[in-house]
Amino acid sequence: MAQNMMLYWGSGSPPCWRVMIALEEKMLQGYKHKLLSFEKNEHKCEEVKALNPRAQVPTFKHGDIVVNESLAACLYLESAFKSQGTRLIPDDPAEQALVYQRMFETNNLQQKMYEVAFYEHYVPEGERLESALKRNKESLVAELKLWDGYLEKMGKGSYLAGKSFTMADVVCFPIIAFFPRLHCPRERCPRLMEYYEMLKDRPSIKASWPPHWLEKPEGPDTLKNL
Amino acid sequence: MAQNMMLYWGSGSPPCWRVMIALEEKMLQGYKHKLLSFEKNEHKCEEVKALNPRAQVPTFKHGDIVVNESLAACLYLESAFKSQGTRLIPDDPAEQALVYQRMFETNNLQQKMYEVAFYEHYVPEGERLESALKRNKESLVAELKLWDGYLEKMGKGSYLAGKSFTMADVVCFPIIAFFPRLHCPRERCPRLMEYYEMLKDRPSIKASWPPHWLEKPEGPDTLKNL
Repeated sequence: MAQNMMLYWGSGSPPCWRVMIALEEKMLQGYKHKLLSFEKNEHKCEEVKALNPRAQVPTFKHGDIVVNESLAACLYLESAFKSQGTRLIPDDPAEQALVYQRMFETNNLQQKMYEVAFYEHYVPEGERLESALKRNKESLVAELKLWDGYLEKMGKGSYLAGKSFTMADVVCFPIIAFFPRLHCPRERCPRLMEYYEMLKDRPSIKASWPPHWLEKPEGPDTLKNL
Repeated sequence: MAQNMMLYWGSGSPPCWRVMIALEEKMLQGYKHKLLSFEKNEHKCEEVKALNPRAQVPTFKHGDIVVNESLAACLYLESAFKSQGTRLIPDDPAEQALVYQRMFETNNLQQKMYEVAFYEHYVPEGERLESALKRNKESLVAELKLWDGYLEKMGKGSYLAGKSFTMADVVCFPIIAFFPRLHCPRERCPRLMEYYEMLKDRPSIKASWPPHWLEKPEGPDTLKNL
């Protein structure tokens, strides 16, 4: 069933990783894929551009269906393979609302993490400002506190949207995994770090772990002084 | 049915507007609501904070279910009232994939529009740089070209994800409406402007049109030199 699927991806890209976790959870192992190097700009290749005018990864194709936005691909997979593998969107309206809420809140965490951890990547050299980076850090600290509070309130051993692993975890885990890797002080988000420990060996996550993270488990320490 | 719904909102906020369009499309008129003034910082009030730790609007409650992220609220409403009003997410997998794809791509258009139109709002005075604003403009122009191309390819009279009005339109229209309002040159996105004309009088959109836009149809000309 996964034979007619093709994923173009980059190692360590959270949007790619979440699609790969969803594929694992939906028991769609065996999909075709091509690992592209960001450093070599391989994601800008013609093969990707033909399917994705943004020339970004993930670029995902299932039969004739192309769906490249990571959340779109995740929701599509859940809908197309609803009864296969893990149910990632629950039926109960209250549970469903919380899953959606956390899924889309992840954007905040993602953007704020990027704006600190990859500040130098996104802001050209002549435009970098201590005041801006300081503000970004404060904003990220506040965001982490919010997420840590969510987990605290849900209780020990909880997933992001309750007692079961859901699409909220698929979407958010790849962001959370950056915090220990980039040396974020544990006290900034102790509950998130427990959550990370609980999930990092889950089969879907382990199977899709970024290969260059396996080679070099420690990343740069851009979150050290948070 | 809508009597046990409560929406806190701000006039002209695209995330609020999209929830209001969804409510109209799902025939949920009659929901309770409270219009809050951004200028007076009313969205930071205790009433909102009690439901939304981000102190943002939209803040939306249905019975005991609170769902504040605009896309989460939209998907929740579609799921909870699937057979009522307009079907906003089609059943057909290929159609569904395109609806999701355009829904989530909207984030790009939204952020790039904000980074030009509201540059002075987001960047403190001492940090503003011509080089950054210029880059933001180029990025927005490229983004508009992409969306215009999507519509061009779909053919005259098409909605964002095909021949029917879907969640893609609910999510994206409130962003597109800023372009004519903020004096974006028509030639930057002629197909989008035709799409805007086609949709602006749709009942759900007209009923939820930002009240301060009705009072003052022309906004500042921050997109004039795009």
